[in-house]
Amino acid sequence: MAENKIPYKIYLDENEMPNAWYNVRADMKNKPAPLLNPGTHQPMTAEELGGVFCGELVAQELDNENAYIEIPQEIKDFYKMYRPSPLVRAYYLEKYLQTPAKIYYKFEGNNTSGSHKLNSAIAQAYYAKKQGLKGVTTETGAGQWGTALSMACSYFGLDCKVFMVKVSYEQKPFRREVMRVYGSSVTPSPSMETEIGQKINAEHPGTTGSLGCAISEAVEVAVKNPGYRYVLGSVLNQVILHQSVIGLETKAALDKYGVKPDIIIGCAGGGSNLGGLVSPFAGEMLRGEADYEIIAVEPASCPSFTRGVYAYDFCDTGMVCPLAKMYTLGSDFIPSANHAGGLRYHGMSPILSQLYDDGYIKAVSVEQTKVFEAAEQFARVEGILPAPESSHAIRVAIDQALKCKETGEEKTIVFGLTGTGYFDMVAYEQFHDGTMTDYIPTDEELKKFRDKLPKFD
Amino acid sequence: MAENKIPYKIYLDENEMPNAWYNVRADMKNKPAPLLNPGTHQPMTAEELGGVFCGELVAQELDNENAYIEIPQEIKDFYKMYRPSPLVRAYYLEKYLQTPAKIYYKFEGNNTSGSHKLNSAIAQAYYAKKQGLKGVTTETGAGQWGTALSMACSYFGLDCKVFMVKVSYEQKPFRREVMRVYGSSVTPSPSMETEIGQKINAEHPGTTGSLGCAISEAVEVAVKNPGYRYVLGSVLNQVILHQSVIGLETKAALDKYGVKPDIIIGCAGGGSNLGGLVSPFAGEMLRGEADYEIIAVEPASCPSFTRGVYAYDFCDTGMVCPLAKMYTLGSDFIPSANHAGGLRYHGMSPILSQLYDDGYIKAVSVEQTKVFEAAEQFARVEGILPAPESSHAIRVAIDQALKCKETGEEKTIVFGLTGTGYFDMVAYEQFHDGTMTDYIPTDEELKKFRDKLPKFD
Repeated sequence: MAENKIPYKIYLDENEMPNAWYNVRADMKNKPAPLLNPGTHQPMTAEELGGVFCGELVAQELDNENAYIEIPQEIKDFYKMYRPSPLVRAYYLEKYLQTPAKIYYKFEGNNTSGSHKLNSAIAQAYYAKKQGLKGVTTETGAGQWGTALSMACSYFGLDCKVFMVKVSYEQKPFRREVMRVYGSSVTPSPSMETEIGQKINAEHPGTTGSLGCAISEAVEVAVKNPGYRYVLGSVLNQVILHQSVIGLETKAALDKYGVKPDIIIGCAGGGSNLGGLVSPFAGEMLRGEADYEIIAVEPASCPSFTRGVYAYDFCDTGMVCPLAKMYTLGSDFIPSANHAGGLRYHGMSPILSQLYDDGYIKAVSVEQTKVFEAAEQFARVEGILPAPESSHAIRVAIDQALKCKETGEEKTIVFGLTGTGYFDMVAYEQFHDGTMTDYIPTDEELKKFRDKLPKFD
Repeated sequence: MAENKIPYKIYLDENEMPNAWYNVRADMKNKPAPLLNPGTHQPMTAEELGGVFCGELVAQELDNENAYIEIPQEIKDFYKMYRPSPLVRAYYLEKYLQTPAKIYYKFEGNNTSGSHKLNSAIAQAYYAKKQGLKGVTTETGAGQWGTALSMACSYFGLDCKVFMVKVSYEQKPFRREVMRVYGSSVTPSPSMETEIGQKINAEHPGTTGSLGCAISEAVEVAVKNPGYRYVLGSVLNQVILHQSVIGLETKAALDKYGVKPDIIIGCAGGGSNLGGLVSPFAGEMLRGEADYEIIAVEPASCPSFTRGVYAYDFCDTGMVCPLAKMYTLGSDFIPSANHAGGLRYHGMSPILSQLYDDGYIKAVSVEQTKVFEAAEQFARVEGILPAPESSHAIRVAIDQALKCKETGEEKTIVFGLTGTGYFDMVAYEQFHDGTMTDYIPTDEELKKFRDKLPKFD
């Protein structure tokens, strides 16, 4: 292997890092549908959005025209703390699989938040600080986003209030503790600190919470407290924009060695990593410059692309957020409790939803024991213990590489390795102990939630 | 900051990675004292050591002459999985401290074992495999070494049996689970699987174990099972040799930018990281080519350098291992239960002990709440949540940088950041909750253990 020209890890130099984010919407003929006011069902204006998000982020959220948006120097400085992230040639995995495929992965887990979430967290914290805000509120499920935002807020001296889904708060005390290192306050959701939390607790005593419910609480606190705004780690257009740094670095690293991928694979919950990874590649497709097979991988237990509908839906349980047109399972949908593998959100990024609807992206769903099998194989040969979320992409990358082995095709596969699984060992334990199960919702179950979708379009 | 010539992170190219380990003993006028047979008190022969360690490692253990020992290609291939590790310029920390000092740290935590331990684990697993062994046994305390060895054994298809100090086994189930990902068997120590374990359990019912006891169990199993050998993650000459890859990379990265350090700081438990980091620099001092201030940092609750004696002592509680001449607190010494910060071994590497005795190394001890204060400051400004062990070095690096602030000296400080603290959040929680305490053993307590040292020299 040593004589191979492509190194095990491609690190860009600091001066090769992107100076601007790429906004894929500029190249989309069919733009993603606008967010709607949940009361009037009219497109949200910048002024309306400004009550929830800070000004610059509203502008980014609504910008369908500018292909490149400059990254402020302060954010570039912060990026240098943990970026550029390596593009790794998976020589060990290729050898193990005995595949003629060439496999690369963009590894975003080498930072204390443990994932790519920091790329957007620092941007959102920066604009909040620039606007003179006191602090921000957010929700977190598995804890990656909450940790990332805590780090970003600590850097800029912003107050950070995190509503953490109660079941995670109790099962992942260490994630909570990392957030405390960065000075955040972490509240289990549903809490008694908000009206919506009190309501949900009264209606569902003993509930262990959900992402949709935590979002509602965080939004309520942001709206009611002067100097505070709400921030979100996925789904939104602005998040896909910030995360484009993943795809831009990936493309720059591949270009450096003259490599053109055939297949690009990413896990998909709300779409933050997938959207960021594929943005520059999808842009080439949209401009007719290149063709790629882009595959979104989602859990079989939360299959918004593969079994959802493309419709306007609420983003949160409390229905206080704007409505978004997206592939959705219905805002009340909560994945089975036995689902350990992250990616639990009921909807999908409007940008990715439109690209999927237009045929630029494919989607597959995978069951979680198959995901953990791939995770463990990967950990053993590549030396990185992956997050359950990321392992969805690993599963399909391995499947594609094995297909190449059958056909003899030397395809180049690139996938996003979004993070590490050091705080997910309970799930690995279930996998080892054989107590992990899969759950695929029935058509009837899905219909029940779909029937509750708001009735307009 | 952006215009500065030295990047935030210096990554060597793969072809700049060391091809040979550096053996500092070759340049030492006063060689480290030989290991002694615990029965005869005569220097251990290669043949005797061969019963415990595999052949090539015995040769390395006894080699006081060859300055460079080639790194086999298979090990270099594995190193490429997670190396070269970055040498980071701590711009954020410098700015935060407003110090004229220039601070660098060599970060060894970006791999799933979470520390530098992998550097020696892979070497020891490789030689075991090459010798046709079935497997290896070892002990682990905090779990970093056990995890590293599990990863290395998985790579070469070796069986790996880890005795984990019982208190850690129970308090750190996630570490145990990571080892299971790599296929190791993990047994809480003292166990009922060994004679020494049964004896200790009978004499101390309910004991939560110690490193010295786990070593005894692992050695017993290795000696009694054909095809097995014992491996150790610190203290030994061979380990310092393998870990020299840290110092060699550090020196190569600094040389690339023409930087000469004034102060080099490392945490010290058994000495594996400190020895590896300082080896090439100590070599220059020994050859009269340069001068550095080298500082070993140890916990005030386990102060083998600063309050121990330089004498022959047992390496383990069960007294089955060879005797080593080292700075020691006595083989029965166990740090206070409230000590969360790692670095719990009663002795210190014979190589480092000799260098310390000859005045090439200084040592300081620090209390653990001060260590965690430094850890949290560092996490907030540099974005890496450090292991408690590593944070001992951070504490003294910050103290030295603040001294420079007072005097106005622009010293260049390099320290070893050995690992991440993701599995140490219980300790961080104690720190946040204010329940963390410091413990400094009294002179009388230390005397009690010192009086039990074997009576010869």
